Amino acid sequence: MTAKLYCFGESGNAYKAALTMTLAGYDWEPVHLDFFRGAARTDEFRAINEMGEAPVLVDGETTLTQSCVIQLHVAERTGRFLDGDRNEILRWLFWDAQKGSGQQGSLRFLMNFLPEDKRPAEAIGWLSGRVQAALGTLERHLDGREWMVGDAPTLADFACCGYLYYPEPFGFDRAAAPATSAWLDRIAALPGWQHPYDMMQRAFPGA
Amino acid sequence: MTAKLYCFGESGNAYKAALTMTLAGYDWEPVHLDFFRGAARTDEFRAINEMGEAPVLVDGETTLTQSCVIQLHVAERTGRFLDGDRNEILRWLFWDAQKGSGQQGSLRFLMNFLPEDKRPAEAIGWLSGRVQAALGTLERHLDGREWMVGDAPTLADFACCGYLYYPEPFGFDRAAAPATSAWLDRIAALPGWQHPYDMMQRAFPGA
Repeated sequence: MTAKLYCFGESGNAYKAALTMTLAGYDWEPVHLDFFRGAARTDEFRAINEMGEAPVLVDGETTLTQSCVIQLHVAERTGRFLDGDRNEILRWLFWDAQKGSGQQGSLRFLMNFLPEDKRPAEAIGWLSGRVQAALGTLERHLDGREWMVGDAPTLADFACCGYLYYPEPFGFDRAAAPATSAWLDRIAALPGWQHPYDMMQRAFPGA
Repeated sequence: MTAKLYCFGESGNAYKAALTMTLAGYDWEPVHLDFFRGAARTDEFRAINEMGEAPVLVDGETTLTQSCVIQLHVAERTGRFLDGDRNEILRWLFWDAQKGSGQQGSLRFLMNFLPEDKRPAEAIGWLSGRVQAALGTLERHLDGREWMVGDAPTLADFACCGYLYYPEPFGFDRAAAPATSAWLDRIAALPGWQHPYDMMQRAFPGA
């Protein structure tokens, strides 16, 4: 049975799950969530995910939330993308949840999806400092490496790249991060790779 | 051999690891990290943890970072605190990394450990909104439950409580969150429970 991913194109967290499933050859299809008009905060959606967040995977009798949990589920079912030290993979998944995608998603939202006159400049400045620090950690880690962990692509790669293919600016500059940029090209060269906006319908009004 | 946890008292992320080890009867001792004077950003410390963060566990030949990874390591070594649905435990660990402890730690820092004239009011306001939303998710989840997952304490409990015993204000009000408050009392009644400031030396200047 085809698994259903509740998602929308702008969500890098949904992309982490969607990309993992696609590269693993998992049978899935997107279910569009009209996120920016509040679809994740309805009672109906909270009955599926009390956290009020995307993505959610409904896979037969199993309902999973949190992008990294969905990634682990798919990896274990398919035997893909868990090569190498499991704890090393896990620590990058947790790092990404807090310091990587977790912060990048908020900053990109504030800088691009709020009306211009409602963008909080000081909050954006504070969060930008944190995002830049985390991008520095990523760049230093990737300098001299092909993949985040070990010698092959793993879930850690598909987590940490979650927000880094989007066109909307939030301070990530490929020219200033050559190791990260080369690694993104490496991921994008994997068979079956797709851009988030080609995998999932966008939810931003007018997009 | 006694495991060493690089930590400091103010870190709720370190507390998540320290509390799990203590309640599991794991043989560990704290190694004080002078965090607020930059000890986590030195080259020496970055050689141990490239992420520049506490906690770090050095356990024989194994070095682990990210509090939830340390929690999982201890749970698997001791066979404790993993009862119930593993994916349900994991999703609360990831939720805590991003929306729970991940945000509470930053907000508490801005509101308490920065000099008063350097506290960014707008950033604090923005982050407070996010922290309150996450505390609401926690309160709704705990309403009618004894523990985060299933019928016994698990790693999910010791993750989500990471910043909730501290005295420094960041908008968490026990009176407004009765289910969360009762759950915190339940955790604090577990044999061997200790307050973070009784387990780990504080790093804040003058504390």
